[in-house]
Parts: sequence; structure tokens; C-alpha cells
Amino acid sequence: MEKIKIGLLGLGTVGTGVYKLIQMRSDIMEKTIGAQMEIKKILVHNRNKKREGVDESLLTDNWKEIVEDDEIQIIVEVIGGIEPARTMILEALRAGKNVVSANKDLIAEEGRELLDTAAEHGKDFLFEAAVAGGIPIIRPLKQCLAANEISDILGIVNGTTNYILTKMTEDGMEFADALRQAQELGYAEADPTADVEGLDAGRKAAIMASIGFHSRVVFSDVYTEGITKITAADIAYAKEFDSVIKLLAVARNTGDGIEVGVYPMMLPKDHPLSSVRESFNAVFIHGDAVDDAMFYGRGAGEMPTASAVVGDVIDVARDLAYNCTGRISCTCYRQIPVKDFGEVENKFFLRMQVENRPGVLAKIAQVFGEHMVSIARVVQKNAETDSAELVVVTDRVKEKHMKDALDKLGEMNSIFEVSSVIREY
Amino acid sequence: MEKIKIGLLGLGTVGTGVYKLIQMRSDIMEKTIGAQMEIKKILVHNRNKKREGVDESLLTDNWKEIVEDDEIQIIVEVIGGIEPARTMILEALRAGKNVVSANKDLIAEEGRELLDTAAEHGKDFLFEAAVAGGIPIIRPLKQCLAANEISDILGIVNGTTNYILTKMTEDGMEFADALRQAQELGYAEADPTADVEGLDAGRKAAIMASIGFHSRVVFSDVYTEGITKITAADIAYAKEFDSVIKLLAVARNTGDGIEVGVYPMMLPKDHPLSSVRESFNAVFIHGDAVDDAMFYGRGAGEMPTASAVVGDVIDVARDLAYNCTGRISCTCYRQIPVKDFGEVENKFFLRMQVENRPGVLAKIAQVFGEHMVSIARVVQKNAETDSAELVVVTDRVKEKHMKDALDKLGEMNSIFEVSSVIREY
Repeated sequence: MEKIKIGLLGLGTVGTGVYKLIQMRSDIMEKTIGAQMEIKKILVHNRNKKREGVDESLLTDNWKEIVEDDEIQIIVEVIGGIEPARTMILEALRAGKNVVSANKDLIAEEGRELLDTAAEHGKDFLFEAAVAGGIPIIRPLKQCLAANEISDILGIVNGTTNYILTKMTEDGMEFADALRQAQELGYAEADPTADVEGLDAGRKAAIMASIGFHSRVVFSDVYTEGITKITAADIAYAKEFDSVIKLLAVARNTGDGIEVGVYPMMLPKDHPLSSVRESFNAVFIHGDAVDDAMFYGRGAGEMPTASAVVGDVIDVARDLAYNCTGRISCTCYRQIPVKDFGEVENKFFLRMQVENRPGVLAKIAQVFGEHMVSIARVVQKNAETDSAELVVVTDRVKEKHMKDALDKLGEMNSIFEVSSVIREY
Repeated sequence: MEKIKIGLLGLGTVGTGVYKLIQMRSDIMEKTIGAQMEIKKILVHNRNKKREGVDESLLTDNWKEIVEDDEIQIIVEVIGGIEPARTMILEALRAGKNVVSANKDLIAEEGRELLDTAAEHGKDFLFEAAVAGGIPIIRPLKQCLAANEISDILGIVNGTTNYILTKMTEDGMEFADALRQAQELGYAEADPTADVEGLDAGRKAAIMASIGFHSRVVFSDVYTEGITKITAADIAYAKEFDSVIKLLAVARNTGDGIEVGVYPMMLPKDHPLSSVRESFNAVFIHGDAVDDAMFYGRGAGEMPTASAVVGDVIDVARDLAYNCTGRISCTCYRQIPVKDFGEVENKFFLRMQVENRPGVLAKIAQVFGEHMVSIARVVQKNAETDSAELVVVTDRVKEKHMKDALDKLGEMNSIFEVSSVIREY
């Protein structure tokens, strides 16, 4: 019986999950792939740190020891971040190793270099765990749906923000309280910026768009806007409109370019993504043959992420057994431009506090008209003596036109505040 | 540039979709798999029938011509049914062809023979389209989730019945009216038995259980019960309980055997499967590493099913390019017994019309008690002078005990009718 030896780079949350899961499944690996699996070496920062249940003799703080080990055929990178992960993966591929990675930051920026290097050396570079954690999405896009021209990818791909928005929606919490609760439960980090500002989702959007549309999209192509400005009042309006507010990664392949952004959206309650609650993730796609499809599950966490990583490791092991590593590499065979975000069209929900006197609405309508923003409906709410709340929902308008209109409205004395600007699905 | 030649067995709805989709994607195949694809021959019953847009020179009514064609490397079987499809596929595999099939009837009964024959000859036998049409489920189970011990598979895998139940739930229709509407829209066949009695879903349950639990389950192992007895009154009760009624394929790998059945269930509204509306399908799974996951989309139809078939064809083409056909074959490496359905435990919702006089409830409760059926709650409704409606919800009880209790209740004069027996999630 052959033994496939694995080198593990990193032993944080995901690394520990990978270690555990490979141990747990060692009995069935022989039956599944006809080979045993063994983690031979593990790269850690500090070899002296106590680690429950981990064989200490496997630990090393020298990554070269792993990359240069002739027996190791698969390297699992779960360090995260750009460097030194990038250098380690490139060296590993050049040394003839197959690599499995969960590193969304790196793949969203340097995916092409990594995939090209893997292809050059005929090795596998798999990264199912880099988008939506445990949810199968990369392999379905690259293989199951390969016969489709995919036009739309909509994802709830950040569990922290989905948890916060769920608490705001279901328990009436304000953002700050929901964030605090998420931090207490370990769903949000002490510095939650990457999550709440949409950066994490933006990286996943870049990876999904690249694979779905067969054209390279990098993180810097992605417009990102977070959920920090969403208030309980916005959530209440969403309910009134039979909608929920979700932070969505939106990628579309339109006739004239790729649109890609991350922002909160009001989504009708009967859309399949609307019922994705708590810290769950889901990716909704539309393809010309398959029509609508959605993939739902745990987007993070020790064991769900390990599930995706070890699934990839098993796939590499099968490729090793059949001598066909490198079987599926980069699928970006065309170059479609990414649109400037100003050219993207969206519907908007706007909430503003305005002076309560005749003629104000006419002035506002005039500003919108001058900027080619067509209004679908206007509702006046909470009118007091001097002020009123005005809710405006627009038709589809270009982002740049809305931005200009908002700049102009900001200059008007009769508008005290534009409280919310939220896109509508 | 190499040309991969394909033989198509069958040119019905799915076959036509496959033909169209391969034509539509011919331009990108070279870029995706480094080879062109060409349908060389198509098996039809009647060569003289007019077929819009199909090259008539490809048609043949002699299947041997396709199976014995040395140039053909991939055979797509979309005839359906057991014979002659079984013989054709076996002969094709023995002749060294790779086979892609959408035939759930055949795979649910003879899957082992087909997969074993494929393995023996080192060929691919793929069937993503056989379960849940366009939704990726076979490949995710076999590859992405391969590191999991899967314990639960719950599926809405029949679009006809889901459409009917959606109309009953959302528009207050009775079963017969909703069925008629489904037939008018082409969602249900003239003879709807296989759909409404749960047989179609039962075949898919057998296939999913086999793959999910790595142990062969065949259609005859699956308990099936349809939706013909569901009434508007049941739907109304479900709403009252914050639930919806769905026809579910339920497969569980418990400590002491596999449970597998198809039956209507009352499912809480916040379960992800509850929001699967109209003719959409979805499969919900629970694995020990990945936790909960769900796959949603079109379970039938010309192009969604073709999407899955052609996805498989592309995968075979990749395996041909890398000389690794047979890479993933049967994954049933263990033998777990399938439980007798009487031993399966479920919660039940019962609705009965009873004599409206003191002591009746006590008698009913006694019957349940004698049969080890523990009652969770009882509500009396619609009491008239002589009769009343009694709703009983039980705790988890063995199916055989419930059956015995119902037989006994049927003998009681004070019970006019047991109107509904529906399992609760």
C-alpha cells in the first residue's frame, strides 16, 4: 500500500482542522483513494508552543525542510496572507509538489502566477476552501457547470456580516451591538475591518468572477462597500418592502464588460439568498443552460474549511494515483474588461431628512432629473413641524449619475441629511 | 487539434438539449479542454421524423453502429428506463467507450454493475444529471465532501410535486387542481404516478444514499409515499405550525443502519429547504466536518439537465486528454444494512374526526400508550354537536408502532376518520 506524504504549512485554526480531519479519515483513505495519507511535517512559528493532540516530532520552523523533502507530494498552505505564503507555494510547485491552499488574499491577487506555475510543472493547485469555506463552489464552477455561459454570481460570502445583519433583522439590534455580540461569539475579530468593510467578500468576489467568467479579475478590480452605515431604521424599511438587507458580492458578465462589487443590498424575501441566516454563506449563480442554482453552507470555521481542504487533498491523491496531476488548471482563457464601477447600473433606496415645506420635493426631483436618475417611487414619512423623512426608490441608474446627484443634494440647504443609500436587487 | 467524437443515444428532450449545448459551446471547448467536440452519431427510433436544427446525416436507428464505431470515445445515454439502455451502456463500456448517463431508473437499480464494468475497463461512467438535474450533487458528494462522514441527506428532488405543493401552499389550491395546472404547464406528465407517488424521488434517494454513505442502496430499499392524500386542510395546519409541507427524500446513516424513504413532511419555515419553491429542487446534507450544506437549482428540463450531462462530457474529455479515465468510479467501499422501515423513528402529525363526547380522548390516548406512541400535544378543533377534529402531534416513535396504533384506531367506533398522517421534521 502506497503512502502519500503531506506537508502542512501553518497550524492555526484551519491547519489544526486539517490535521485532525486527515487523522480522523485515515481508515477510509485506503478505500477511497487506494493509498494511505500521512502528514510528515508541519511548519509552525514556534516549535515550543504546547499543542494538544499534535505529534511534536512533525513540527519544524524551517519551511525549506518541507518544500525540499523528496517524499512529500502534497503541500497544504494554510498560513494566509500574501508573503511568505506566495514564495512558499511557488517554490513548492517548482520543486514538483502539488499544492492545496485556502488563501483567498493570495489567490485574489496572485492567482494567475500560481496557476501558471502549477500548469508549467504539471502539478495541481487547488483552492476550494478559499471561497465560501466548506461550500463546494470552485469545483462546481470549473467542472459541473463547465458547459454554461455564466452571467451572474451573487454571494453571501462573509459569515460575520451575515450574522450581524441577521441579528439586526431578527432581533432589532443596532449595528454596534450586533458586532459586539459577533465578537463575543468569535464570529468577528477584534479588528473587524476586513469583514464589515466588505474586503474579505471582495477577495472572494474576485476569485469567483475569474472562474465563473473565465477572465482574470483581481481584488483591486472590486468595488467594496461595507455594512457599518446600515441602521435599524434601514432594516425596518427593508421589512416594509418585503425585503431583507444582505451584504452581497455581485459579479455579472454583461455584454460590455464584467461588473464586480461588494455592497449591502435590499433583496426580496422570496429570493433564495434571503433565507440564508446567521453565519451561513451561499453563492447564487445564473448560467444560460442550468438557469438558477445556489450553493449553501458554512463559509468559515475550523472543520468546514478543513472539509474543503482535505477534499482537495483527496482529489490530488487521486490525480497522483492516475498520474494526471495538472488535469484542471487555470480556466481563464479570455480577457474581458472589468467595467469602471461608475458605469454599473443599480436601483437605489435613499432615505433623507428634509425641510418640511412646499417645493422641497420638486427641487429634489429636479436634481435627480438633471442627473438622469429616474424615480420609481417617493414616500414621505415621520413628518414633524420642520422636518420630514423622505424615502426615494429609483429605477436602474448608473452609479456615476447617482454619485453626482448625491453630491448635488449634499449642497442643498433644504436637505439636512442623506441618511441611507442602499442598492436594491 | 484533436477531435473528440461523441455518440448520442436518444434524442428526446434531454438528448436535444445535449445536442444544442454541445453545438453552442463548440467554440470554447478547445480553450477549456484543448480539443474540439463533435457529435458523430445519434440513435433515434425513427430516422424519418423531422427534427428542426439537427443534422439528419448523423441519425441512425442501429445502436451497434454507435457502440462499434472506433472513433467514438464518449457515449451519452439519454434514453431512460432499464432496457435497452442497460445493455447498450454495458456493451459501450466493454467496447472501451466512456459513458455519460442521465438515467436514474437504471442507476438506482443497476448502478453497481455499470460502475463495476466501467472500473474493469478503466473507463469513466458519470451520471451527474441522474439526480436533481442541473444541480451539482454527485461530484460535490464524491469529491468536494469526500473528507466527510455524511449522516443526513434530505432532498426536494421532484419538481412536479414541489410545484403542486407550492401552489397548494401559496394559492390555497387543492391537490387535484394544482396537479391539473402542473400538467397544463408541462411540469407533470399525463400519467403523473411516478412523480406524485414518490417513485421518481425514491430512485434519486437510492442513488444519493449510495454515494453519500459509501454503501449500495437500491430503489427497492426505499420506502415511498406520495402527496396525493395531502389536502388544503393539512397545508393550513402546517402554516399554523410555522411549517410547510414538502415531499422529501430522506436518507440517514444512523449507528445501526441506513434509513431511506420518500414522504411528505412538515418542515419548519426556517429550514433552508422550506424556501425551495415552484419546480426548483434542492439537496440538503449534513457532514461531520462541513456541517450543513445545501445545493439548489433546476431538477429537470431540457437545458438544465443538458448542463449536467455536458459538464460530465467535458470532464471525460479532460480525463481523455490526461489519459486518466476511470479516475473516479464506484465509491461504495462498505456494506451498511438498510433498516426495515418499521424500525425508523419519526414524529407524526395526525388529524382525525372523532365523536364529540367525554372519554374519547382518553381512549385514543390509551391506544397510543399501548403502542409506545408518546404524544407531544393534542388540540381539539372545529367541534360540532356530534363530531370534532382532533390534531395529535407525537414525539419520535417507530414507524411500526405508529402503524399498529393507527390500525387499532381504525377499529374504534368513536373515530370516524383518520384524515391525515404526516411526518414532522
